[in-house]
Amino acid sequence: MSSFAHRHLLGIEQLSADDILLLLDEAEHWVSFNRQRRKQDDRLAGLTQFNVFFENSTRTLFSFEVAGKRLGATVANFHAIGSSVQKGESLIDTALTLDAMQPDVMVIRHSETGAPGDVADVVGCAVINAGDGTGEHPTQALLDALTMRRRKGRIEGLKIAICGDIKHSRVAGSNMRLLPKLGAQLRVVGPPNLLPDDTRGLAAFTSLEEGIEGADIVMMLRIQRERMEASVSGSLEDFHARYGLTRERLKRAAPDAVVMHPGPMNRGVEIASDVADDPDRSAILEQVEMGVAVRMAVLDVLTRERRG
Amino acid sequence: MSSFAHRHLLGIEQLSADDILLLLDEAEHWVSFNRQRRKQDDRLAGLTQFNVFFENSTRTLFSFEVAGKRLGATVANFHAIGSSVQKGESLIDTALTLDAMQPDVMVIRHSETGAPGDVADVVGCAVINAGDGTGEHPTQALLDALTMRRRKGRIEGLKIAICGDIKHSRVAGSNMRLLPKLGAQLRVVGPPNLLPDDTRGLAAFTSLEEGIEGADIVMMLRIQRERMEASVSGSLEDFHARYGLTRERLKRAAPDAVVMHPGPMNRGVEIASDVADDPDRSAILEQVEMGVAVRMAVLDVLTRERRG
Amino acid sequence: MSSFAHRHLLGIEQLSADDILLLLDEAEHWVSFNRQRRKQDDRLAGLTQFNVFFENSTRTLFSFEVAGKRLGATVANFHAIGSSVQKGESLIDTALTLDAMQPDVMVIRHSETGAPGDVADVVGCAVINAGDGTGEHPTQALLDALTMRRRKGRIEGLKIAICGDIKHSRVAGSNMRLLPKLGAQLRVVGPPNLLPDDTRGLAAFTSLEEGIEGADIVMMLRIQRERMEASVSGSLEDFHARYGLTRERLKRAAPDAVVMHPGPMNRGVEIASDVADDPDRSAILEQVEMGVAVRMAVLDVLTRERRG
Repeated sequence: MSSFAHRHLLGIEQLSADDILLLLDEAEHWVSFNRQRRKQDDRLAGLTQFNVFFENSTRTLFSFEVAGKRLGATVANFHAIGSSVQKGESLIDTALTLDAMQPDVMVIRHSETGAPGDVADVVGCAVINAGDGTGEHPTQALLDALTMRRRKGRIEGLKIAICGDIKHSRVAGSNMRLLPKLGAQLRVVGPPNLLPDDTRGLAAFTSLEEGIEGADIVMMLRIQRERMEASVSGSLEDFHARYGLTRERLKRAAPDAVVMHPGPMNRGVEIASDVADDPDRSAILEQVEMGVAVRMAVLDVLTRERRG
Repeated sequence: MSSFAHRHLLGIEQLSADDILLLLDEAEHWVSFNRQRRKQDDRLAGLTQFNVFFENSTRTLFSFEVAGKRLGATVANFHAIGSSVQKGESLIDTALTLDAMQPDVMVIRHSETGAPGDVADVVGCAVINAGDGTGEHPTQALLDALTMRRRKGRIEGLKIAICGDIKHSRVAGSNMRLLPKLGAQLRVVGPPNLLPDDTRGLAAFTSLEEGIEGADIVMMLRIQRERMEASVSGSLEDFHARYGLTRERLKRAAPDAVVMHPGPMNRGVEIASDVADDPDRSAILEQVEMGVAVRMAVLDVLTRERRG
Repeated sequence: MSSFAHRHLLGIEQLSADDILLLLDEAEHWVSFNRQRRKQDDRLAGLTQFNVFFENSTRTLFSFEVAGKRLGATVANFHAIGSSVQKGESLIDTALTLDAMQPDVMVIRHSETGAPGDVADVVGCAVINAGDGTGEHPTQALLDALTMRRRKGRIEGLKIAICGDIKHSRVAGSNMRLLPKLGAQLRVVGPPNLLPDDTRGLAAFTSLEEGIEGADIVMMLRIQRERMEASVSGSLEDFHARYGLTRERLKRAAPDAVVMHPGPMNRGVEIASDVADDPDRSAILEQVEMGVAVRMAVLDVLTRERRG
């Protein structure tokens, strides 16, 4: 059961298929738990979780906060923006200072790729990467996988298209590592300058229609306005015209294709509203629900050993 | 006992006199509770309360947070200002996203009138309006009523003058709905351009002296500087000269008139300091105390059914 | 045991040597407690702690928050920056409003010297000064004393040099009051215009080398860039050249001298990195650990009576 061999969750890169399946299986328990009326477990009572966000991310922070509190942890949010960090203190000094307050887990978001790993090298607590630069966002990929598995019954053999700004997206980064490990057939789709130089051996498409052809899962990414402008002609309408997921375009995917998006959505840009709101196709809100469950699983598993 | 038929608390508009009295009676319990040394009840343990404030309101947010925590709820504050909301996400998408994390209650403040109702239409949890635009602020009117009832022993038949910027005040909006339902004789007082077009059949005065004549309760509202400037000649002194509650003016009210204010006060503008600080007349701090008790009652009552 | 005669902790000024020793002894318990796996005590269950910070101070706020939560208190942070305080409400009105919500403890940071004392005069709860202007920061001095005592086995007779911007530092202010009460031999060291007019009878040095001669403890203070520029020639390099603690300069201190800093450090300015990171000499992270323990002791002791 508790065969998770890692002290930290820094990225999907370091996980085996078994590690991933363990976390998904554990998360299933928390899905059921969160559907109960009362959601209170005490297994993390007396343990301390610090959420240390150097970048604004209200949703992810909130999801981790709710996850920790439902497990009974002492949760405190360190507002790294506008704090001593901005008085010139280095990431490592901030991390060491917080570690000296003896937390059990630090959840870190940072604009620099690799920052959570740098912290993990020096602290005594478990570190969870909640998004680093253009690197990884492992709990997002785990919640995506959980959502897919629940919708489709499996991940192996699924045809999955990730569409949008692949190059800069840590959501894509973690999904591109996770899904092949579980045997999915993954493709990436986007404007040429938003595709990564290294597609990790995956099929890459610059046409949305071709890219989602026959796909079981169509995962749209949030497009940042400033990057979109550099990639297409510049207007929201132009981007939508070429890379927006519309009901018409979705017909190219498998008949029962599931649509996903990590949120927050730009309706009418990367995704049309009728697609986002179609209860038969859209799994977007289910992804949010799975997010809390996955984070509870990760918090539980990473603190299991130190709880004795 | 638990005959409260509403799933949400969106406004006083929707409540009957019995609904209001039920909440006031329940709140009495929490007044006593909060005067105990230890203030911890577990009835909301395992339930989740999200405070979702799209407008700055430190006091009201804080009061709801304290109320929820004293009932044992898992409380998390969603900082909607500076979050994905500002990345262009709509109110409804934010609300649906938060609802997918399975809270039991969402406390919402928003600058748009009607926003909490829009949210209530789409979410599965209970919604509490903590102030919407120029609409309602129902817990404020409830705490005001509780304060009056405790000071005067009743609300029926009380002569109550609400004074100031009636037109833009949601505090006035909710009080103008609540107090007549409980049989009070209500008047509104303010500069002509700060009186609403529809005074809901209430007597309206543009002279403070005349408006508070014989009043048992004089409720002053906070004046926003920008509105005051448009309403009188423009200076703080001029406003105070015509619409500030002074000890001299207060003599026009009933001999034992009680002075109220929702805070934060502009001392020397809408209210003179010696009036605000008079322990025999001012109920301003008691209002704050009643606020926590009323919010505990609302949280308790609205979650009673789902607690089973 | 509970012979602490004060209702508030406003400054070291008001404490006797016995008061200080009591708090240090109590803190020792919490040091051990915090080194356990599970850190949860229920003695403050049902008590309410408000952290009311009118100045940004992420670290100190966070330390108090963790301390209160580990004791089981209901903790709520009042974000005084950007709140009704900025709508023109006075400190005293804010404090009275918060007090009406019936907290047991208010932890206050304010840019005006004396503000926590002004609050203590009007509220019913215990007030803890978390830093006021250029006045005091008593929990910092207590944690510093605890760190010294643990490193050196005693405080009496220790030769201690506090170095940097003595004049504007409340850390120095509290240490200059505490350490002589416990029999330490204290000196202050800094540029002439950053030494206070009244050194409270302590030896004062403008040469760092001379000031730390034979010192058992070298406590460096954080230098504010704008003050540094007014004090030396203006550049970071110049300040470091004259007042930075380097490995070479540290040789002037006692052979086993301990280096301290309240954080956050300006590496390469008031302290060289190799000194800050030397595990044999630097007690900087231990100070942070002691901070949580000292604050737990203060919260426990100040609420002991009201807990009955």
